[in-house]
Amino acid sequence: MALLVQKYGGTSVGTIERIEAVADRVQRHKQQGDDIVVAVSAMSGETNRLIELAKSVQSTPDAREMDVLLSTGEQVTIALLSMALMKRGIDARSYTGSQVRITTDNAHGKARIQEIDTEAMKADLAQGRVLVVAGFQGADEFGNITTLGRGGSDTTGVALAAALNADECQIYTDVDGVYTTDPRVVDSARRLEKITFEEMLEMASLGSKVLQIRSVEFAGKYQVPLRVLSSFKDGEGTLITTDGELDMEQAAVSGIAFNRDEAKLTLKGVPDIPGVASRILGPISDANVEVDMIVQNVSVDGTTDFTFTVHRNEYELALKTLNQIAEELGAKSVLSDAKIAKVSIVGVGMRSHAGVASTMFKALAEESINIQLISTSEIKVSVIIDEKYMELAVRALHSAFKLSDSEAGVSEA
Amino acid sequence: MALLVQKYGGTSVGTIERIEAVADRVQRHKQQGDDIVVAVSAMSGETNRLIELAKSVQSTPDAREMDVLLSTGEQVTIALLSMALMKRGIDARSYTGSQVRITTDNAHGKARIQEIDTEAMKADLAQGRVLVVAGFQGADEFGNITTLGRGGSDTTGVALAAALNADECQIYTDVDGVYTTDPRVVDSARRLEKITFEEMLEMASLGSKVLQIRSVEFAGKYQVPLRVLSSFKDGEGTLITTDGELDMEQAAVSGIAFNRDEAKLTLKGVPDIPGVASRILGPISDANVEVDMIVQNVSVDGTTDFTFTVHRNEYELALKTLNQIAEELGAKSVLSDAKIAKVSIVGVGMRSHAGVASTMFKALAEESINIQLISTSEIKVSVIIDEKYMELAVRALHSAFKLSDSEAGVSEA
Repeated sequence: MALLVQKYGGTSVGTIERIEAVADRVQRHKQQGDDIVVAVSAMSGETNRLIELAKSVQSTPDAREMDVLLSTGEQVTIALLSMALMKRGIDARSYTGSQVRITTDNAHGKARIQEIDTEAMKADLAQGRVLVVAGFQGADEFGNITTLGRGGSDTTGVALAAALNADECQIYTDVDGVYTTDPRVVDSARRLEKITFEEMLEMASLGSKVLQIRSVEFAGKYQVPLRVLSSFKDGEGTLITTDGELDMEQAAVSGIAFNRDEAKLTLKGVPDIPGVASRILGPISDANVEVDMIVQNVSVDGTTDFTFTVHRNEYELALKTLNQIAEELGAKSVLSDAKIAKVSIVGVGMRSHAGVASTMFKALAEESINIQLISTSEIKVSVIIDEKYMELAVRALHSAFKLSDSEAGVSEA
Repeated sequence: MALLVQKYGGTSVGTIERIEAVADRVQRHKQQGDDIVVAVSAMSGETNRLIELAKSVQSTPDAREMDVLLSTGEQVTIALLSMALMKRGIDARSYTGSQVRITTDNAHGKARIQEIDTEAMKADLAQGRVLVVAGFQGADEFGNITTLGRGGSDTTGVALAAALNADECQIYTDVDGVYTTDPRVVDSARRLEKITFEEMLEMASLGSKVLQIRSVEFAGKYQVPLRVLSSFKDGEGTLITTDGELDMEQAAVSGIAFNRDEAKLTLKGVPDIPGVASRILGPISDANVEVDMIVQNVSVDGTTDFTFTVHRNEYELALKTLNQIAEELGAKSVLSDAKIAKVSIVGVGMRSHAGVASTMFKALAEESINIQLISTSEIKVSVIIDEKYMELAVRALHSAFKLSDSEAGVSEA
């Protein structure tokens, strides 16, 4: 008998039929003897409908009132799912974020959870009740309704699991797990049975949009075992857990992540003196542009080249800002390129396996793919390449690290 | 400078355009220096949409969860109206029933307000804020969301006005006031400037569906001046107030009410002995049939005739029950008639004007309308007649009591 927190996203509760299917699954787990707390999102489309309503009234809707409005979305779902469970003879009870006492700060639209009062929930669970909690929302210390921002329902699920010391937080989505890479790019991409929090963070931030980064960070911090599952078909999904839970023979590389959302900017021939990096990135940051990779190589003749990448949406703004900086610093020139892709290999196994980076570079060289930038962390190596080679690079790396089913010799259901 | 509580029903906030119009009106009052608390219903159609959703999940939806679901309707409206006010530069703030601390009992779907905590509202009003409160809802002592039942937004408005000691509770509807009778029946029906709570109760329960009876009772109990106004056109509406506020020269009769929702049942020849009335009405009440008029005349030869009226929807059930009773009591026969109408004259002026009833009977006699039953209270006289004469009777009475514009010599805008 386990205590499970199950989170169902908007697609999983998008229609009455889908809500009934969720109730069926909860019923099966309940019959197996598990205690269940369910966190749900708004029915898909509902949040966008409410946002449109708000914008038709106020072009930039007031943040406090927006949260009052948006929080109704999950409130509808918790009531309907509770009814569906009761129809099945299951004692269920809904809770809004305010009612369960998910206390947050007062940053409307992107609030952070500070505390969850578990007293009432524990009493309900002791009575055998299934709890249905509205995801994505809470209330500040004064009772003002807050929302956690898009994807916040994942965070609610993890936070509930942490507060209740649950055995597992199960995130039901429209994919059946985390894959070695995107199956749309590599046919033989393989579902991972397990992955560490750190790897998941690198995979997520690099473009595998299965889970919200915040919820993975949160789960890692509180060591809540997280499982990604499909709400549409049965299966084991992927367990996201700590290093200690992984097999000894963990492969060096767990997966290949990629994205083409970035653009690259280079300032050539800037004086190689202390304070230059901050004189470049200060104005960029002031313009609210987020920087991803930053690369600076050793200097030649007292000048150096400084390169960084930004989200492609902020490319124009970053370029404009950088041209001003170049003038101030007396740089030789500004180079920029939006037609790039970032491809990364991720894996905690890199720590104990030598030669991972060289295998990567060799695989790319064999396909004559030129590497424009390299950046590494303890568990990943990222390269920037011409975007037209992205799929080729991903396939080459997937194969070079033997990530496919057949190559890994892993048999899947 | 006055403190006004304004209540807007579903039609008045049915679209974004209507919400903008409400915001315009609130702005005008605010500019005149009034303090404003607004209570709103769900956008028209929304409550029915939510009920349909619930019923598609659970044929008899759980009452607690139904309240969780339905309360989202007003929550959407308070957020949108607050945004519309802020767009106009008005400092506005929304409150759900839970947030304003409208404490109710736990009778989900038909909860009664027990207490309203005005502390936060008073602080907001002192800051010049307009408060936008969700009507129809509250929370029990444990924080469970409750609803007051259909029409409960009127009750919320009145309760807020009573708790805040407001100068007036203004109920905005789709009619511009209370009329001497239904203008669809009598062209010259006149809008009343003032009417007493008691008269309004008689008018409402007799078929003038302008206000919910509960809210009028509530307003009368707490002596909250109530004004019915149109949210679609400007005007003074009708003030519902205490006797003391009325003009000395108040006419004998304020209005003519009528309905054809009732059916009449008679038990002929029952023994005229103590306990007969309860032996008849006990089983009727046990069958959950509500009885309206009850008439028993003096006995002849030790037996009497016992007549009562019920809602036409419950006619079949009442008749079936009465046939059983008739057998047990050894009554002569059961008579019944669903083709009846009730027509009533209502007015506090009756107390001081003699001959009101005889004027009524004379007017009906002049049209050869036979009176089947008569029932009187201190401020009304009701008769049951054949339903085909209903409109004729209403017009005759409206004229006999000089209620029309021209006859009363009242000039209206």
